[in-house]
Amino acid sequence: MIVWLQGNFLPLEEARIDPTDRGLTLGDGLYETIRVHGGKPLRFSAHCARLQRGTDLLGLPYPTTDLGGVIAELLSRNDLADALVRLTLTRGRAPRGLASPKLPQPTLLIAAYPFPGPVAPCKAIVATVTRRNQASPLSAVKHLSALDNILAKREAEKHAVDDAILCNTCGDLAESTIANLHIVKHGKILTPRVEDGALPGVMREFLISDFGVLPTRLVAADLLEADEVFLSNASGIRPVIAVDGQTIGSGEEGPMTARIRAAVN
Amino acid sequence: MIVWLQGNFLPLEEARIDPTDRGLTLGDGLYETIRVHGGKPLRFSAHCARLQRGTDLLGLPYPTTDLGGVIAELLSRNDLADALVRLTLTRGRAPRGLASPKLPQPTLLIAAYPFPGPVAPCKAIVATVTRRNQASPLSAVKHLSALDNILAKREAEKHAVDDAILCNTCGDLAESTIANLHIVKHGKILTPRVEDGALPGVMREFLISDFGVLPTRLVAADLLEADEVFLSNASGIRPVIAVDGQTIGSGEEGPMTARIRAAVN
Repeated sequence: MIVWLQGNFLPLEEARIDPTDRGLTLGDGLYETIRVHGGKPLRFSAHCARLQRGTDLLGLPYPTTDLGGVIAELLSRNDLADALVRLTLTRGRAPRGLASPKLPQPTLLIAAYPFPGPVAPCKAIVATVTRRNQASPLSAVKHLSALDNILAKREAEKHAVDDAILCNTCGDLAESTIANLHIVKHGKILTPRVEDGALPGVMREFLISDFGVLPTRLVAADLLEADEVFLSNASGIRPVIAVDGQTIGSGEEGPMTARIRAAVN
Repeated sequence: MIVWLQGNFLPLEEARIDPTDRGLTLGDGLYETIRVHGGKPLRFSAHCARLQRGTDLLGLPYPTTDLGGVIAELLSRNDLADALVRLTLTRGRAPRGLASPKLPQPTLLIAAYPFPGPVAPCKAIVATVTRRNQASPLSAVKHLSALDNILAKREAEKHAVDDAILCNTCGDLAESTIANLHIVKHGKILTPRVEDGALPGVMREFLISDFGVLPTRLVAADLLEADEVFLSNASGIRPVIAVDGQTIGSGEEGPMTARIRAAVN
């Protein structure tokens, strides 16, 4: 596997992250996961725009690297046309402590992974172990401090299901550990609001603009009363067929989910 | 600088963190900062106990390494007797995604830094940029997903003060970006409760047991009405003499703070 790190293409095993990198020591950074189909990064400008919102919030310089050019070369060197590209940007090496380094030297790492292909319909739980912090502006950017999502994912693993849906500190639905959440009811598609803790996902934004998905305040009971439930992220659309052991709708992928999945995947 | 990484003492510049380490990619890990005085780690068993609570929460194996022995050797190799030791434990290298690795290979990194010495009294703000998530069990362990604290610290830097005090999502006081908070009023010492988002700091626990500090629900107004305000962490005690530009008490270190600082620093 060839990765790109700080201007160089090199084998993963030769790529070195410094132990004082703030990405490692403090989760101080951002990432993007970008779907590549037929050699082409999908919704690339939307990913760049979100990264820019993240760098603005964290006070990091936006990379001057030609990201599109690096990704194209990385795909070529790894012989990948169908891929997921992960871009990781950290505040870089720094002395101990939380103080902002005077001369920040951000670390930029780009890696490409084979696209794992379509996944089976999802069984989920509503996480009880933790809550998403809708009162933090971090809930609106894709960042490296992901431990709450990991705790929820581990709860899902304990229940032998695929994913967990997080509520915010008020008890409203926010998102799953790796995807935005959508509920189909009476022909409408509803999704939790950003102010309730939903990440403004690139695919979510596309569904709002092109499929009329409506950001709405939602609670866990709405899941069980839904006609269909599905998840979206850069990888695509995934139907949710059960939540907390209760069947959603018909227990199979619903027609609205199938239609959207066919249109975007 | 010599660090200890995965069983080896080596120069920092030769220590390599893999780009797929979950500490870097997802903030998936824990840390402890331990004060060393006269070659002796202070309150070491309390740090180990908190690390154990963290590994239990995250589902990481507690290190089998002789931590005390490694720290002693590390101090010797770096010629340090007065130091801060940072121990970092991550879930280690893993494939892309949030799923728990089937065979976790945790990364353990230990570094020792010269103790920076006593710091001047602190001016602080109450952070407005973000809130601490008291609804997450992560607020009770010392973990690598520290971005909310970094945002608050950056807000303090913009106001040219030393630290920021975080409220939780209900508006109650929780802690500062790097320390526990204490308020002296009518001879009593009050500190935010763990259930309100205070990290159960090792020094805080010592102050509760040995100095009668009382965990109490507190709000920002309590700061301005306090006789004294101070912070505590593994480095010691630090008086807070102003909050949001308003003087606290006499505007100098108060007698209670001075007494406690002399006793523990």
